[in-house]
Amino acid sequence: MKIARFDAGQGPQLGIVDDGSVIALESLGRAETDMIALIEAGPEALAQIAAAIAGGKGTRVALDTVKLLAPLRPRKFLGLGMNYRRHVEEARALGIAVPDNQVWFNKQTTCVNDPFGDLERGVTEKLDYEVELGVVIGRAAKSVKAADAMDHVFGYLVVNDISARDWQFHSATFTMGKSFDTHGPIGPWIVTADEIPDPATLDITCSVNGEVRQSSNTEQFIHSVPAQIEYLSTAFTLEPGDIISTGTPEGVGAAMQPPRFLQPGDVVRSEIQGIGIIENKVVA
Amino acid sequence: MKIARFDAGQGPQLGIVDDGSVIALESLGRAETDMIALIEAGPEALAQIAAAIAGGKGTRVALDTVKLLAPLRPRKFLGLGMNYRRHVEEARALGIAVPDNQVWFNKQTTCVNDPFGDLERGVTEKLDYEVELGVVIGRAAKSVKAADAMDHVFGYLVVNDISARDWQFHSATFTMGKSFDTHGPIGPWIVTADEIPDPATLDITCSVNGEVRQSSNTEQFIHSVPAQIEYLSTAFTLEPGDIISTGTPEGVGAAMQPPRFLQPGDVVRSEIQGIGIIENKVVA
Repeated sequence: MKIARFDAGQGPQLGIVDDGSVIALESLGRAETDMIALIEAGPEALAQIAAAIAGGKGTRVALDTVKLLAPLRPRKFLGLGMNYRRHVEEARALGIAVPDNQVWFNKQTTCVNDPFGDLERGVTEKLDYEVELGVVIGRAAKSVKAADAMDHVFGYLVVNDISARDWQFHSATFTMGKSFDTHGPIGPWIVTADEIPDPATLDITCSVNGEVRQSSNTEQFIHSVPAQIEYLSTAFTLEPGDIISTGTPEGVGAAMQPPRFLQPGDVVRSEIQGIGIIENKVVA
Repeated sequence: MKIARFDAGQGPQLGIVDDGSVIALESLGRAETDMIALIEAGPEALAQIAAAIAGGKGTRVALDTVKLLAPLRPRKFLGLGMNYRRHVEEARALGIAVPDNQVWFNKQTTCVNDPFGDLERGVTEKLDYEVELGVVIGRAAKSVKAADAMDHVFGYLVVNDISARDWQFHSATFTMGKSFDTHGPIGPWIVTADEIPDPATLDITCSVNGEVRQSSNTEQFIHSVPAQIEYLSTAFTLEPGDIISTGTPEGVGAAMQPPRFLQPGDVVRSEIQGIGIIENKVVA
């Protein structure tokens, strides 16, 4: 199931994407207006929704007539550095030390942007892209072992972990340069976990103005999604709706020779197999 | 004005602390039940509340009969490293490089704890304390200059930036070791900015089992509160209720010779002049 947040002219709504149309949750008699509330409603809610749609219920609106919005604003938005084997080699070539542990940083949740929202350059001189598979947490997870971790995954979405490289390296914590306003486009919807039997088998690409810059597959993961959930939840509770973004493959602009950073007018297209496409234009 | 969140037996409420009692906002006819909503209601709301109390309105409950709760769960909880001159010397002695820029990291908002809540040790072997002045943002701040920054401060509270030193240094981002569940006790209430004319003049202390470990004054700040707000808001929007924690003075357990980490049963008491005291017991 693909669950979108969209605006058809009456403000934000949740809906199910099906065969080129979107079915508003409200038209299925559901009370949830917030994605986190829907996630917290659990699998029974999704089963009821699926049954209602299978029974022909709900009002369909053509998908290409609505504006897709960020599926949610999570309470935590965490990103993993250095998680594709070839990206690690690329970083090593730039003189960046390769870590022993999973390297997690925060994207401030204020940076969340719509799947087709504009990217504001802000004060950076070194704007860069990083397509990533985002995992959306379902059931709260604390001290969860890898073997049980997938029970805590609600679904997946495309993330572009837009990065201001100059500000990223102001400090080793990455806090400033990963979180400029608008630098967290996500979407185009959440694909529920049942549609992605194995998240480590997905083609993942990013292009700029039609030129493919990143093209890999999540089979390149160093740390698997279950290993990520185990590690994070050893320290703190992952909550429904939290997004953990699983790292980016090689091909970032900062690693090109010479580096090629994003400029106003550039269009960044991010695609993951089985999930969809987000596309964002850089504005001054 | 001191604004608390408390439980007098009927669940969480907001209230004003005055002369040994707390006056529930509800008894003053206010609709706000959430601290962020009250902050967003702006200065007029506070003026109306103050006038109502001055007019003798509201029901008073003895402060020592209620349970004080974390004043809020912020959308962002940011901490600043290395911001007291003598703490920087202490860190340098431990071989930690002294940074050029403000070093900000996130505490995950799941770590927020009550002002007298227990600290769960979790899996760390190196549990440590860091008393800090926490600044609560009022009006949203984006690209705010230092000269205007104080207009965006709602108030202040005591933070203890409890740290799992072993996990903190798993990676240079500090993401894991600053955010164990329960490791962000805050409170005991928010003191509004009008009561603290200059946040860089406050005595700040932390004791463990009655032994003073940290004793300093915020005059030791390297980066002032206005400079902090300017820097952060250059990259992203600070929102009402966001907490920026301004760094800790020297005297942390990790820097003692030999290091002395917190153990179950230890009681950590954190006090800031003009704000109040929080006290937290370590449990296994």
